[in-house]
Amino acid sequence: MKKIQTEYLAALRAEMAKEGINTVIVSGTDPHQSENPPAHWRDREWLTGFWSANGTNGTAVVTPEKALCWTDSRYFIQATEQLRGTGFEMMAEDGPEAVNIVDWVTEHTPAGAIVAIDGTTFSISQAQNLQQELEDNGIKLRTDFFPFDIINPERPSTPKNKLFVHDEAIVGESVDSKIARILMQVKAELANAVMLSSLDDIAWATNVRTAGDILFSPMYVSYLFLSDSSRVLFVDSDKLTPEVSAHLAKYNLEVRPYESVFDFVAALPKETRLLIDPAKTSRTMYDRLGCTPVFGGAGIAKLKSVKNEQMLRSLDRAMEKDGVALTRFFMMVEKEAPSGKLTELGLTRTLREERLKDPDCVDESFAAIVGWNAHGAIVHYEATEESDVAVQGDGLLLVDSGGQYTCGTTDITRTIALGTPSPEMIHDFTLVMKGHIALARAIFPAGTTGHQLDALARQFLWAEGKAYYHGTGHGVGFFINCHEGPQSIRLNYVPTPLEPSMITSDEPGLYFEGRYGIRCENIIETVPTMTTEFGQFLKFRVATLFPFDLRLFETSIMTDEEIAWVNDYHAMVRERLTPLLTPAQAAWMEEKTRPLTR
Amino acid sequence: MKKIQTEYLAALRAEMAKEGINTVIVSGTDPHQSENPPAHWRDREWLTGFWSANGTNGTAVVTPEKALCWTDSRYFIQATEQLRGTGFEMMAEDGPEAVNIVDWVTEHTPAGAIVAIDGTTFSISQAQNLQQELEDNGIKLRTDFFPFDIINPERPSTPKNKLFVHDEAIVGESVDSKIARILMQVKAELANAVMLSSLDDIAWATNVRTAGDILFSPMYVSYLFLSDSSRVLFVDSDKLTPEVSAHLAKYNLEVRPYESVFDFVAALPKETRLLIDPAKTSRTMYDRLGCTPVFGGAGIAKLKSVKNEQMLRSLDRAMEKDGVALTRFFMMVEKEAPSGKLTELGLTRTLREERLKDPDCVDESFAAIVGWNAHGAIVHYEATEESDVAVQGDGLLLVDSGGQYTCGTTDITRTIALGTPSPEMIHDFTLVMKGHIALARAIFPAGTTGHQLDALARQFLWAEGKAYYHGTGHGVGFFINCHEGPQSIRLNYVPTPLEPSMITSDEPGLYFEGRYGIRCENIIETVPTMTTEFGQFLKFRVATLFPFDLRLFETSIMTDEEIAWVNDYHAMVRERLTPLLTPAQAAWMEEKTRPLTR
Repeated sequence: MKKIQTEYLAALRAEMAKEGINTVIVSGTDPHQSENPPAHWRDREWLTGFWSANGTNGTAVVTPEKALCWTDSRYFIQATEQLRGTGFEMMAEDGPEAVNIVDWVTEHTPAGAIVAIDGTTFSISQAQNLQQELEDNGIKLRTDFFPFDIINPERPSTPKNKLFVHDEAIVGESVDSKIARILMQVKAELANAVMLSSLDDIAWATNVRTAGDILFSPMYVSYLFLSDSSRVLFVDSDKLTPEVSAHLAKYNLEVRPYESVFDFVAALPKETRLLIDPAKTSRTMYDRLGCTPVFGGAGIAKLKSVKNEQMLRSLDRAMEKDGVALTRFFMMVEKEAPSGKLTELGLTRTLREERLKDPDCVDESFAAIVGWNAHGAIVHYEATEESDVAVQGDGLLLVDSGGQYTCGTTDITRTIALGTPSPEMIHDFTLVMKGHIALARAIFPAGTTGHQLDALARQFLWAEGKAYYHGTGHGVGFFINCHEGPQSIRLNYVPTPLEPSMITSDEPGLYFEGRYGIRCENIIETVPTMTTEFGQFLKFRVATLFPFDLRLFETSIMTDEEIAWVNDYHAMVRERLTPLLTPAQAAWMEEKTRPLTR
Repeated sequence: MKKIQTEYLAALRAEMAKEGINTVIVSGTDPHQSENPPAHWRDREWLTGFWSANGTNGTAVVTPEKALCWTDSRYFIQATEQLRGTGFEMMAEDGPEAVNIVDWVTEHTPAGAIVAIDGTTFSISQAQNLQQELEDNGIKLRTDFFPFDIINPERPSTPKNKLFVHDEAIVGESVDSKIARILMQVKAELANAVMLSSLDDIAWATNVRTAGDILFSPMYVSYLFLSDSSRVLFVDSDKLTPEVSAHLAKYNLEVRPYESVFDFVAALPKETRLLIDPAKTSRTMYDRLGCTPVFGGAGIAKLKSVKNEQMLRSLDRAMEKDGVALTRFFMMVEKEAPSGKLTELGLTRTLREERLKDPDCVDESFAAIVGWNAHGAIVHYEATEESDVAVQGDGLLLVDSGGQYTCGTTDITRTIALGTPSPEMIHDFTLVMKGHIALARAIFPAGTTGHQLDALARQFLWAEGKAYYHGTGHGVGFFINCHEGPQSIRLNYVPTPLEPSMITSDEPGLYFEGRYGIRCENIIETVPTMTTEFGQFLKFRVATLFPFDLRLFETSIMTDEEIAWVNDYHAMVRERLTPLLTPAQAAWMEEKTRPLTR
């Protein structure tokens, strides 16, 4: 393995020398700016040897003298290990040792020399930023360096997974309607056509999905061109089925080969004012444009964040299915924990199996986090063979997981006690829940954005000098990406208001390094509540269905309203799930949702 | 009066014709971008006839065909009245009828024609924005049109009020130290000199004040140039006293005539990299620069927002003085209210007199708002002969006022019941106080900004579909401007964190048009509270000293902590003020601060 990396590196340097290139930057993403790119585009991974099943954040830089791989603090330990002997050194993207990649490249490339990138894997914005800095220092940027097929003859092909139609009865909106709404946005930005590169936008617009292209997200590799007179889907024809071809034909979506997209845009006439999002569209697309670019597209991203009534009712079904799978899982955990035989990795596998028993569950929505005590304090923990520990004794088990159901995407975190939890654990859990409840119960004027509500979830922790530094809530896609913009609930400025029928998470937490972690997450829907002389007011409706651990509430620090919220929520969970449970499960649920009292 | 305005307008149009100018825009501010400009620069007021003692917001536009005056919704009724017969029509700056001034001017000026402004009264940013739009439409901008001395031979002179030194024992920092800190900021922005135009910055830097130049703010008309080798104060020599001259000489501040500043900057060599704030510096200054401009200066504005220990202890004395004046005032109100002889205007005058009895009180810090019932619902209400009403019967009296003491600036709002308040008034007052208390009691990590805390003050109103749309808190100057940046507590994004020793207001409110208004305002100081493994945490210390009306608390909707906060605060008020009161006042205070019980 390690021998191979040094060989790749030598081959890359040979290609660079041949082309007169001093420095190469290798991105960790694909032409669609995916977080979890398909294997074909994981060039940075095979080149450096640093990888992770769940998508890694990494960027490689190679010069004649140096081979470096940047990553963020979540991966420092892992990257240091995996890079040993590969010829690559690790560089920090954040933290006290952080080095800015563009600055480093600028400093270590002589004036007049060439820096090269594969322009398909850099967004227009990223490349522009890089180019500006380089040109200010007399360095040239080449954006058409594509050496990876040459230096890796076994480079995986682009994905060939079969597509399927996402049932309109679940989705509640036809492709024609979605395209009409997209084209209204296009015209609002004074363009007359649009090229979508972002796979979640395309999956949403076409009501088509697949499994396997992108880990944990049922999106498919493609581009979509739309104008009043033309609708072209650029997708590998191997991926089509008769059903999908009929669906595309029904909506006048012409299919062309995936690779032909660049020739297509090169041939577009100057009069075409093509809307492209510079953060989501590749530099190569921009380099090849024959038409006039119009930068924008924020309005299109927002379309899919507001769910229709049919999607919301479908999501309710997904939440019921998820609640049933979690009931089986947590009943097992509770029963088996005293045996001492449970492990984080075993639980991770069982949880996946429980979800996939439902025929509508296509995949998990992200790599489940099952963290026992100290591992629960690692926000992005993923149990591996190396890290795995037995789940035994006293403490807290943090389980953050979700499913990709055809009727909606779920994302839920529960922190439960096993054995005897300490008074501190109970106290801290209650503080986190008080914040969770404060956000869930909030009422706010229309137009309010996530940064304006965020402190409601943090106030009780802050009062004791405690804090978490991740966001409190992210948007959630509908059988697409589990993390979806543009709305979110966080300390930093968020321009997008929380609108009715948006779906967002509510997930405050608290993490004590080396000891334990707590996170309590439900998915919440924004709904109207009242209109007064002061305007329209909104609130949240909780969509997720699973009890919080009654053993972890310190009721003496809770208000009557907070206790009532827990009891009302648990009553709803019991009522909705019980009809779907076996008698034994229903009895367990009854016990887990009994009223909290002082 | 009205005849005169039409004459001014004719004279202005004659000057315009003489110079070949199509359109003139007349600003409502001065060369220092003051909110309340001295009489000399109130050209827009005498030209249009629309004015107010407390500083008006207005901009005039004159073309050969049209004479218009823009203002905001606070002044629509007043402006319509005052503009009648002057030749000017009112235009709306905000609200549903709003028209953008720059757009209007662009549309109503032919291509190739000239738009003119007095560049001394437009900031660089404003003029740049205007120029861009005009030039995009083939219109020329002239920035050196100064017709006001010609068309108004009785134009008031620039202010001649005498200056005085602001005692270093109160201020706690020498001019040398302040200038050294300013020059550090200048160098941090890669400049080597700075020209300050903003009068609050100059008053702060020089430890010099006056009375009368700017209504309600003891700042003086001047410019200040600073570099390592030179310190020049541009100020009218008539304003100097021997004491002030000695003070300036002590700190090597060379005095030059106010008007000579433009020749001075014209003569600066190219190597001078002069830091100027484009939002606070006039276009004329920019037009005349001989040196290299560096746009910036945010760091300088921040210096004065963080108060030193001596200022904070001085402010405590100002708060005591203010509390004593308010005790006399509110005792009188309570005693005289049943007589039915009180009026808003009479109370406004009495309140001013009570404050000015203290020899350290130089002026009020803004035009006091004394609003009875429906008038309390007008956020920027100012009682006039026309609006004045008797304060009699049952209801709420809102009093928002403050003093400019040499030992600090105060700003306080109390809403009190007279007669028998309604249950709704009591309920709404309690909701406002719950928000006031939630902000006052907040604990938060260092780095937290005002937009992150704002919802704490609004949450209880929102829960009942009620809301206020002004900010919750503004920074407060120290014997300078009562409203001071850069920190604030509001719904909109605020980049500046709340740092220890910043002084900010806490003033949620609620307004029912035509019925009553409530606002509860204290001044709060940011102070450190604890450092934990999660970082440093801050909280607020209340500086203001005066009780809230005990008759207006609905204790059944308050938590134990909220009741305890009121009682603790009142105990502190009583303890701090009693030694300064007469026995009768002390007895009244004892009664007004008795513990709140359920």
